[in-house]
Amino acid sequence: MLFLTLYSICATILRFDTQQRGQMSMPNQVSADPDKLVIFMPSGRRARVPAGTPLLDAARQMGVEIESICGGKLTCGKCKVQIQEGSFPKHGLVSAADHVSPASEDEQRLTDRLKIKDGRLSCCTLVNDDVLVFVPEESRAHKQVIRKSATERVIEIDPAVRKVYVEVEQAELGEHRGDWGRLQTALKQEWQLDNLAIDLLVLRRLQAVLRKGKWAVTVTLWQNREVIDVQPGYQEGVYGLAVDIGSTTVAGYLCDLRTGDILATESAMNPQVSFGEDLMSRVSYAMMHKDGLDKMHNAIIETLNKLTSRAAKSAGIRARDIHEAVFVGNTTMVHILLGISPVELGNAPFALANRDAMDVKARELGLRLHPSANLHVMPSEAGHVGADNVGVLIAEEPYKQDEIVLTVDVGTNAEILLGNKDWMFSASSPTGPAFEGAQITYGMRAAPGAIERVRIDPESLAARFRVIGEERWSDQWHQGDNGASDGQPNHLASGICGSGIIEVVVEMFLAGILLPDGRVNPALAEHERINWNGKTGAYILATGDQTGNGQPIVVTQTDVRNIQLAKAALYAGAKLLMMRADIEKVDRIVLAGAFGSYIDPRHAMILGLIPDCELDKVYAVGNAAGDGARIALLNKGKRIEAEQVAHWVRYVETAIDPDFQDQFVKAIHLPHASDSFPHLAGQLPEPIEAPVDNNRRSRRRR
Amino acid sequence: MLFLTLYSICATILRFDTQQRGQMSMPNQVSADPDKLVIFMPSGRRARVPAGTPLLDAARQMGVEIESICGGKLTCGKCKVQIQEGSFPKHGLVSAADHVSPASEDEQRLTDRLKIKDGRLSCCTLVNDDVLVFVPEESRAHKQVIRKSATERVIEIDPAVRKVYVEVEQAELGEHRGDWGRLQTALKQEWQLDNLAIDLLVLRRLQAVLRKGKWAVTVTLWQNREVIDVQPGYQEGVYGLAVDIGSTTVAGYLCDLRTGDILATESAMNPQVSFGEDLMSRVSYAMMHKDGLDKMHNAIIETLNKLTSRAAKSAGIRARDIHEAVFVGNTTMVHILLGISPVELGNAPFALANRDAMDVKARELGLRLHPSANLHVMPSEAGHVGADNVGVLIAEEPYKQDEIVLTVDVGTNAEILLGNKDWMFSASSPTGPAFEGAQITYGMRAAPGAIERVRIDPESLAARFRVIGEERWSDQWHQGDNGASDGQPNHLASGICGSGIIEVVVEMFLAGILLPDGRVNPALAEHERINWNGKTGAYILATGDQTGNGQPIVVTQTDVRNIQLAKAALYAGAKLLMMRADIEKVDRIVLAGAFGSYIDPRHAMILGLIPDCELDKVYAVGNAAGDGARIALLNKGKRIEAEQVAHWVRYVETAIDPDFQDQFVKAIHLPHASDSFPHLAGQLPEPIEAPVDNNRRSRRRR
Repeated sequence: MLFLTLYSICATILRFDTQQRGQMSMPNQVSADPDKLVIFMPSGRRARVPAGTPLLDAARQMGVEIESICGGKLTCGKCKVQIQEGSFPKHGLVSAADHVSPASEDEQRLTDRLKIKDGRLSCCTLVNDDVLVFVPEESRAHKQVIRKSATERVIEIDPAVRKVYVEVEQAELGEHRGDWGRLQTALKQEWQLDNLAIDLLVLRRLQAVLRKGKWAVTVTLWQNREVIDVQPGYQEGVYGLAVDIGSTTVAGYLCDLRTGDILATESAMNPQVSFGEDLMSRVSYAMMHKDGLDKMHNAIIETLNKLTSRAAKSAGIRARDIHEAVFVGNTTMVHILLGISPVELGNAPFALANRDAMDVKARELGLRLHPSANLHVMPSEAGHVGADNVGVLIAEEPYKQDEIVLTVDVGTNAEILLGNKDWMFSASSPTGPAFEGAQITYGMRAAPGAIERVRIDPESLAARFRVIGEERWSDQWHQGDNGASDGQPNHLASGICGSGIIEVVVEMFLAGILLPDGRVNPALAEHERINWNGKTGAYILATGDQTGNGQPIVVTQTDVRNIQLAKAALYAGAKLLMMRADIEKVDRIVLAGAFGSYIDPRHAMILGLIPDCELDKVYAVGNAAGDGARIALLNKGKRIEAEQVAHWVRYVETAIDPDFQDQFVKAIHLPHASDSFPHLAGQLPEPIEAPVDNNRRSRRRR
Repeated sequence: MLFLTLYSICATILRFDTQQRGQMSMPNQVSADPDKLVIFMPSGRRARVPAGTPLLDAARQMGVEIESICGGKLTCGKCKVQIQEGSFPKHGLVSAADHVSPASEDEQRLTDRLKIKDGRLSCCTLVNDDVLVFVPEESRAHKQVIRKSATERVIEIDPAVRKVYVEVEQAELGEHRGDWGRLQTALKQEWQLDNLAIDLLVLRRLQAVLRKGKWAVTVTLWQNREVIDVQPGYQEGVYGLAVDIGSTTVAGYLCDLRTGDILATESAMNPQVSFGEDLMSRVSYAMMHKDGLDKMHNAIIETLNKLTSRAAKSAGIRARDIHEAVFVGNTTMVHILLGISPVELGNAPFALANRDAMDVKARELGLRLHPSANLHVMPSEAGHVGADNVGVLIAEEPYKQDEIVLTVDVGTNAEILLGNKDWMFSASSPTGPAFEGAQITYGMRAAPGAIERVRIDPESLAARFRVIGEERWSDQWHQGDNGASDGQPNHLASGICGSGIIEVVVEMFLAGILLPDGRVNPALAEHERINWNGKTGAYILATGDQTGNGQPIVVTQTDVRNIQLAKAALYAGAKLLMMRADIEKVDRIVLAGAFGSYIDPRHAMILGLIPDCELDKVYAVGNAAGDGARIALLNKGKRIEAEQVAHWVRYVETAIDPDFQDQFVKAIHLPHASDSFPHLAGQLPEPIEAPVDNNRRSRRRR
C-alpha cells in the first residue's frame, strides 16, 4: 500500500501517461493483482485497470465518453467527475475519495479558477484502489438533447466540427517537418488524428498563431479530416448554423455545437419573392433573364449574410465564429443557393442537377461565416421533393414507426410523406402561396396585426378574432378585463395570415356562409355581414372600427376559391399516395411547417386539407425541415441516415398522374365531394344538395 | 465454324459487351475449347480468351495497355492495332486478318474519317481465332518519353488528369438520380470509376453541357476521384503546365499530357525582383511592410497569368484548356506563391509553414488556368531547400545511383545534393545573385548582346568573346567570313551574363591577370588592358569599338571578389557535405540550373566552383528543377516518390555549421587555398607565393 501511494504521488507529479507507466517495471509484491475495479455511473460500466491509470483513460477504455477539449493538459476543466464515498454491496466494492490520487496543485488551481467545487478532473485523477465514479450530465461527451416532436426524441450531440487543444513542439534548427508537420504530429499523438488536411487559409495563418499561442493552439477540425481553424492558446465555443430556405421565408438557427442549445433564431423574407412568388415563376425568371440566376443567387446570399450577422450578434459571437452550416430547402432553392440554374426543374422530366448531399466551403458561395466553414447541403429525393423534406424525414423519423404516418409540410409547395418503417412514399403538391397569405385580398404575413384565430357565431354571423400581438380576442378589446390599462388593443387588425384564412373559411363553412362547393350562400345575400355584388358575396370579417386603417377586412369569393384550390392540391396528393400504398386510412398525421403549427387539427380536417384521422393523432410539429437541418448540424451520423432515407423513399410524380386530376376535383369540395370523415361525425354542416332559397339557412350548432 | 462466324457478325452488329455474351448459352459443339490464343506484340503477352472477345478487352485482361478515350464508343479512334498475317511457328500460331471480325460500317466510317489506313480499332474488333496483334507506339497507353539528362531516362506518361468520353442515360420522369447521379452511373459502368466528387463549378454547368452534347460528354478527371470538367460530345486534348519559380526567372513548360510533348516554353522575370534581389531581402520586405506579402504574391500571380496566356497562345490553345499545373521553387517562392508569409524563413530556426506537397485549386490563387484545375506544389526538404531541389532530385534521381553524385543547382541560392542510392545529404548555400549577372559592374541577364563566352590570349591579354545572338567570336566580327553580309555583327556587346563572368574570371586567372587570391596582378598595372587606379585594377574585356554604346566593358576587382564569394559559398557547401559523408572525392558532378548549362565544366573546376572530379564526369543538365516539375506533371506516381525522397534526404544546415566558415574562407582562393585538383594537373597557373615584380608574369600556356 505504501508503495502504491508513493507510486501514485510520483505518477501524479510526473504525469506519466499509461504507455509510459506500462514500460516501468513493477515490484513483485503488487504484480499478483495490481488491477483495481472502476465503475462509472450512471452507465454502470465496469472494468479492472492497472493502479495509476487516469480515470479519463479508464473511461475511454470502457467506452464511457467523458468530454475533454484539452486532452489532459489541465486547461479545459470539462472532464469533471465525482468520486462516490461509501460501501456499495450491490456493486461489490467500497469506494472512497482516497482511492484515487490526491489533487495536484495544478488541478487545485484550475478547479479553483473554474469554481469547480464538487468534483475531480478525471484526466489527472489516478486510480489507487477500487472506486465508484459518477459522471455528471455536463461532463458527458455526446450529450443528448430532447426534441419535442410528434413523439419526443433524443438527439445525440456529435457534430461534424470540434475543437481540440494541443501543445506543439517548437520549431528547432535541424528539425525540418515544418509547422504543419509538427502540428500533425501533436494531433496524432494527443488525439489519434491521422491523415489530416489543412485548409490553405488556415495554413497561411498557422505560423503566426502558433507563435502567438506560445506553441499551444486550439484546432477546429471538420469530420476529423481537415483543419479548418487554428486559434492561439485554449479556446472554447463551437458554433453552427442550421438554415431552412423556404420559398417565402428563410429561417436560421444558431446553435452551440457542444451543448446543442439554440442560441438565436432569426428569420427573413426570401428576397427572391421579388422575382416570382412561387417556384415556377422563379424558374421562369431564370429561364427568361440571362442574369436571372445570378440575381436570385446573389439576393439569397446577401439575405443569408444579414441573417447570420443578426443571429451572431444576438448570441454575442462573431459570424466568423460559425464553423459549420447545414442547409435545407426545396430543390429550386437549393439549386439557386448553389448557383445552379433551376430551369430543368421547370419542365418534365424535372431533372435535378444533383440529388446527393453537397459539402461546399462557405467562401465558395460568398457566405460570411468562418471562411473555411463547411456548408452541408442536405440531399434531395426527386425533382420536386427537396432537402427540406429530407429534413422533415430525419426530424420526424416516420421510417422508424410501426404506425402509418402521413406527414404534410404545408408551404407554397407542399411535400407529402406517407409510410412507416417498411415503406415510404413521397410526393409534392403545388399548393401555391395562399396558405402564406398571398393571393388573398387581405392576406398578410404572420406579423403583428394579422388575424390568426377566428370564430363565427352561427346565429349572428359576427366574428370574434384574435390578432398577432394581442392576448385578447376582439370581443374583449373594449372591456378592459384583461389587465390592459385602457382596454384598447395595441394592434388593431390589419389583415389575415395563413392560419387565420384557414380558420375563417372553415368557420364560414360551419356557419353556413359557405356551401360545400365553396360558394358564398346566395341565401345570405341580404345579410349585414355579407357584401353581395349580384353574383358572388364577400364576408365582412372585421368591421372598420376593428381595423388599423378604418376599412373593413373582408373575405371574398376568390379568396375562398384560392384556399379551396390549395387545400385540394394537398389533399389530392395525400390521397394519391394512399392509393399507391393501397390503404384506406392513416394512423397518424403530422402537420409540419411553421404554418402547420398554427392550424387547429380539427379545422384542417373540416376544411378537407387532410384526410380523416383520429383527431388526437394529428400533431403540429412546427418547422420540422429546420429541425432536421439542426439535427444534421448536431449529429453527423444523421447526415448519412438522411442520404440513405432520401434514396429509399419512393417518389410519386403527382403532376403527370391521371388519378391526380380526378382526386383534385373531388377535393375542391368542403371537406370533400365523396370521402367520408367518420372522426368529424356530428361536427359538419348537414349536406346541402342544391342552393337553398334566400330565406333559409341550413347549419348546425357547433 | 459457321456458327462462330455468324455469331461474331451478330456480336459485331449488336456490339454486346463481354458480360452480356457471357450470359448467352453456347452450343455444345464449341464449348469444348472455345478459347482462342491472342498474342500482343511488342510485349509478347499472350492468353486465351473466348471467341467474340473484343481485342481491347483481351488486351486489358492481359495488362496490355491500349489507349482509349471513348471506351469503345467508336469515337476516338485511339485504340488502333494491326493484325499480323502469316505463320508464326515461334509463337505456335497462324494469324490472319479474318481471324478477327470484319470491320463494321461504323468502324469503317470512323477509320475513313480519321484516315487510319493500316489498322483496326481494337474496341470493336472481336477475336474469331488465334491471332497475333501488334500495338503501334501511338496506341500504347502510358507512353514513354525519353528525357536527355546526365543519364538518359524514360518518363512514363501517367498524369493526374485524364479525359474520358461517356454516354449518359437521359433524364426521364420517374427516375430521380439527378444528372450528376446518372453521370456517376455511366462513369462507373464504362470506366469503373467510383466514389467520385464533382467540383461545384462543373456541377453548375453539368445540365446544360449534357443537353448540348445530347447526353454524350467528355469528362476530365483529377486523380480518378474528382470531376473537374465536362464538355459536350467527344473532345480531345489534355494539357498541363510545369512551372519553376526561380528567385530571378520564372520558367513555364506547357505540355500535352497525352503525348508528353512540350508544346511551349515561356520564361519571364520574377517581378518580385523589384522588392528585393535575393531571398533575404524579399523576406525583409514581407517583414517590414504590412502589405509586403500581398504585393509580392499578387505580382507573381500576375506574371504567372501572363506567362500562361503566352504559352497557351503559342500552343494554339486557351489558358482554360490547362487542367493541371505543377510548381517548384525555393521555399520562399513557394510560400509567397501560396500566400504564406516567408518571415519565419528569415531567421533561425528557419521553420517552414509546410514541408509537404499541396494541392490547391487554381481559382483559390487567382491563377487563370481552368478554374477547377489543380495546382500541385511539390514538397520541400527543409527551411532552405525547397521544391526546386526536390524537382532536381526526381529529374536526376541520384538516389537510384551506385556512384556518388554531387548535384549543384546554381542560382541566387544554390542547392547542393550529395549521395547515392544508400544515403543523401542536401544543403543550401547563399551564393547571391552574382552568377546571374547581378552585383557585377557590367553584369546583365542572358539576353542578346551579353558576353557569354570569353578567351584571353595569355601573351597579349586581349580578349576574344562571343555575345548572345551572334554565331561569330569578336575577332571574326570584321572579317565577314561567316556569311554575314557586311561583316558587322547584329549585336555589339552590351554587358556580361553569368556564364560570361565565370569564363572571364577563369581566363583572367589563367592569363595571370588574377593572382590565386583573386587580386588583379599589380605587376600588370601598366598594361594597356588594365585600368589601374593605384590600388586595384580592372580588366578591359571589350574595347569601345566592340560595344553598343562605345564605352569599354571592364571587369573590376569588386566583380572578381563577388564571384569569388559566390563560388566559395557553393564550394564550401559541397565540401561540408563531403565532410559529413566522410568522403574525399565524388564520382560524378551534375550542374543543374539553366545557368549551369552554359558553364564549361573545366572553367567551373578551375574557378573552384566545384571540387575535383574526372572532367568527363561533369554534366550540365539545364533546368533540372523545371524538368522535375514536368516529370511530376506527366507522371503522378513521381509525386509520391518526390514526397518520399524529400523526407529521406538529410538536410545539413550550413549557416550555423562552424566548419562552413572555415571551408568558405579556404574556398575564396582560385581554385582553392588547400584542396588539390588532380584532374586539372598541368592546367593551372604555377602557384605564386607573393606578388611578383612589375615586369614578370608567371603563367602557363593553355
